[in-house]
Order: sequence, then structure tokens, then C-alpha cells
Amino acid sequence: MSYILQIDFTMEGSFGEEMATAFHDLAMSIREEEGFQWKIWTENPDAKEAGGVYVFETKEAAEKYLDMHTKRLAQFGLENVRAKVFGINETLTKVTDGPVK
Amino acid sequence: MSYILQIDFTMEGSFGEEMATAFHDLAMSIREEEGFQWKIWTENPDAKEAGGVYVFETKEAAEKYLDMHTKRLAQFGLENVRAKVFGINETLTKVTDGPVK
Repeated sequence: MSYILQIDFTMEGSFGEEMATAFHDLAMSIREEEGFQWKIWTENPDAKEAGGVYVFETKEAAEKYLDMHTKRLAQFGLENVRAKVFGINETLTKVTDGPVK
Repeated sequence: MSYILQIDFTMEGSFGEEMATAFHDLAMSIREEEGFQWKIWTENPDAKEAGGVYVFETKEAAEKYLDMHTKRLAQFGLENVRAKVFGINETLTKVTDGPVK
């Protein structure tokens, strides 16, 4: 069963295409993380918040990534980081067309 | 561009297949909500937390659903509800295989 990692934080920096250019190499590296399946990059320029919704193959992979990524976000100077790892209720998720294996 | 709605809350009730049975009809009804694309149902029995990650076609549809769903969660007696609506950075999401249109 796959696991969800959801993260969001306050970000003063750029959004949209400027953010996409700034984080392109980071995005490429995330593809290579152990157990990684996909990530949706979230942003709210009005609230100055951003984050991501990830799916990993295992709980261990999600928690290992979160530990590493939390330190990286701190290095970036990002604050108010809120992260949670969840299991997925596969039966209900199938009913509502959720894109997980 | 699609929008993400992420919600989680404290839940004392059942998880797994018991939760799937209890919420099957609710899941079917969510399929019919305006602008709804998909939902992944999240659960953490150890932390007694559950929630969902949704994708809607527009920000308005996401916010309208959140308003209705917040009242419904209150009726269920669920507490510590935390909900956020985000735009999606499509350029970065494509790099990391995020399942959005």
C-alpha cells in the first residue's frame, strides 16, 4: 500500500514559472528518491504558502524523505513547516478515482 | 488549472475496511460534487487522524465543497479540522509525474 506525505510552509519567495525555474533541478532529484511515486507541487501566492503532496511506496520511504526534506527546508529558511504522513484507504480511494496503485 | 484541497482531522472512529463500509455512500456522493476530479482518502489509526486529498477543476469548486464539507464534519462530531486549498505548479508537477490534468 502506498503512503501520502503532505507538506506545506510559509514562503516569501517566487511562485509560478519563477518558482518552477528555481526548483527544476530539485524536482529532477526528487524523482530519484527511494520509493518515490509522484509529487504534486502546491502554491498559494496570496497566502504566501507552498508545499507538496507526495506518494511513496512505503511508510518508511515517506518518513525517510520527510526527515531529509525537513532539514533542507530549514536550510532554505522556510518556516511554519507542517508535515504529515498518512496511509491510504484503498477501498474508498478507488470509489473516488484516486490515482494510487 | 486544477486545485488541491487537503483536509485532515482527529477521528476516534474506525479505520480500514470498517471505515470503507461506513463511508461508501458518502464516497459515491462525492463523485457527483461540482468540479470534482478525484480524492485520496487518508488515515492514520495510530495517531487517530484521517482526511483526504482532493483535486477540483476550479478554486471556486474546491472552496464551495470545503464550506459544505466543514459543516458535515462538524455534524459528525469531528474535531481539529485543518483544511487548505492550493493552486498547483503545473511545470514542476509534470517533472515529478503528478497525476493532474
